[in-house]
Amino acid sequence: MSLMLTEIAEQPRALERTIRREGRRIAQFAEKIRQQRLRLIVLVARGSSDNAAMFGRYLLEVETGIPVSLAAPSVHTLYRARLDLRDALVIGISQSGEGADINLVLENAKKCGALTLGITNEAGSAMTRIADETFLLHAGRERSVAATKTYTGQLMILHLLARALGRRRAVAAIERIPELAAASLTLRPQIEEMVERYAYVDHCVVVGRGLNYANAYEFAIKLMETCYVVAERFSSADFLHGPIAMVERGFPAFLFAPPGPSLTGMKELLAKLNALGAETVVISSEAAALRSAHRAIRIPVRMPEVLTPIPYIIPAQMFAALLAEARGLSPDRPRSLQKVTHTV
Amino acid sequence: MSLMLTEIAEQPRALERTIRREGRRIAQFAEKIRQQRLRLIVLVARGSSDNAAMFGRYLLEVETGIPVSLAAPSVHTLYRARLDLRDALVIGISQSGEGADINLVLENAKKCGALTLGITNEAGSAMTRIADETFLLHAGRERSVAATKTYTGQLMILHLLARALGRRRAVAAIERIPELAAASLTLRPQIEEMVERYAYVDHCVVVGRGLNYANAYEFAIKLMETCYVVAERFSSADFLHGPIAMVERGFPAFLFAPPGPSLTGMKELLAKLNALGAETVVISSEAAALRSAHRAIRIPVRMPEVLTPIPYIIPAQMFAALLAEARGLSPDRPRSLQKVTHTV
Repeated sequence: MSLMLTEIAEQPRALERTIRREGRRIAQFAEKIRQQRLRLIVLVARGSSDNAAMFGRYLLEVETGIPVSLAAPSVHTLYRARLDLRDALVIGISQSGEGADINLVLENAKKCGALTLGITNEAGSAMTRIADETFLLHAGRERSVAATKTYTGQLMILHLLARALGRRRAVAAIERIPELAAASLTLRPQIEEMVERYAYVDHCVVVGRGLNYANAYEFAIKLMETCYVVAERFSSADFLHGPIAMVERGFPAFLFAPPGPSLTGMKELLAKLNALGAETVVISSEAAALRSAHRAIRIPVRMPEVLTPIPYIIPAQMFAALLAEARGLSPDRPRSLQKVTHTV
Repeated sequence: MSLMLTEIAEQPRALERTIRREGRRIAQFAEKIRQQRLRLIVLVARGSSDNAAMFGRYLLEVETGIPVSLAAPSVHTLYRARLDLRDALVIGISQSGEGADINLVLENAKKCGALTLGITNEAGSAMTRIADETFLLHAGRERSVAATKTYTGQLMILHLLARALGRRRAVAAIERIPELAAASLTLRPQIEEMVERYAYVDHCVVVGRGLNYANAYEFAIKLMETCYVVAERFSSADFLHGPIAMVERGFPAFLFAPPGPSLTGMKELLAKLNALGAETVVISSEAAALRSAHRAIRIPVRMPEVLTPIPYIIPAQMFAALLAEARGLSPDRPRSLQKVTHTV
């Protein structure tokens, strides 16, 4: 079995550890910064961590009402801009804690008056020394080049942070997430069978929206780096603004369709794609969405939308890992990549 | 000749009109809001206008030091979040001024305390009635579904706004841009010859960074909607964090490589792509970058980086319009699309 599949399977226990070991610290941190009136949250990351940041961008804005921005690292690293970041919380996210550009942004943000926070899997990494505060994933060492348990660990930290900073304290039973993640793992045999059909796929599109928009990016990056599939990714709204013109008969389209406010739009897009003859693959707990898909990945438990991002990415992770093997590739050692990428 | 090519050719005159008719109004607006201390600028748009917003995201942050965020429209339209937007300027960008979701975000932003600004080509559109202030592109009616002159018009307004709000008033002779745009139009015969080679291309990647990152998105969306090419788009840094694994011998990669702080990284990526056997096509004025490309699109005038985004997108627009024709397609009437897309 590939390291990637092993690490995918570790996620329920890793997530439980994240909650147990960091939950209280995150609540205390939130209590402390509640005194200072935060005006802005800035997230900064690269690769899969940047996809986690994109999830945080939606969740934090929706739950806290504080405006959120995804940083453009080059504004800091190449253009050396001095932003006014007083009363801002700048959050760096990095699996290794060694991404040079992310750490440079954190350093610059401090000089610009921001409070800084690091989210990483590596205690003792450079990020933990730079950031004012650090939360650790406790996911255990990630050995596959393709990030899986660190991506969901980052999502988990962001869930805890959003709840702690949020205005609606009761909303989310996020303690249920590890068990929901475990339920998703039971889809493996079905996905193993399903990937055979896509052994020769060249390109596809992945669509998600709102809290699952980041998952579209994450599934696509997994398909690109482990299967070498040219995978586009869009929100259902952006997809209709131009890119849908690409779609012809047989074009593979993967859709995240959790219950919640984005479901209606996703079903409309699904109908449109079906009318164009696309090959639609839907990840959902919702019968109405699954029924009209060409291929269905049925999430075994129905849950409030805010809990979906982690349980919904897991079948996609398994899909990428198993498709790589079906294509004769090792998902753990993508060509042209190392585990830690150095860019500025 | 297609409408798209006609409208591409109209750009130098349209840009001149934008500067002449809106320059002073934008300066006055900036003077007025300089009194209120802006803490945040939020940009909101879809499709090509969203690519213009992405350019604004970099330019405004670098030139003004005010943090900038690209809005996630669904936070407002689907999740109905109430953000704290006091002391924020929220800028909606829409060619038609009729994008329902963008206008909803502007309305919600007003309720949340923001000052709102519309950037559109249509006087009398819904956006002009909603926003506190509007700047018009004066690009003349855009009849091709593929946006060209309205994209560069939006960039021009953002240039004027950044200069007016900026701290470095002398930096940019942006009045030169129309003439630089005209110089780029002379590349047409060369590009007409070049596109023949790509008549059967299925997929590609477009790479840009910093001020030209938005152009990578814009070139890609043009290739998707007019040529039905599956076009990925990345910053050079993000591309190295995973997606580069897709690249095999002959993989077409288009790179924007203007002079400036991103050039070194772009040349490194170019060398890496060449080593992987990719087909590299470089848009640049810089001999060192052009020399090592498989195909070169030489921008005829060397200019400071801040002036490059408009002159650099023009050959890309022509490439898409001419490639569409070489593939037997009308770039003015992409399948599955209308000029105004309604999404919420």
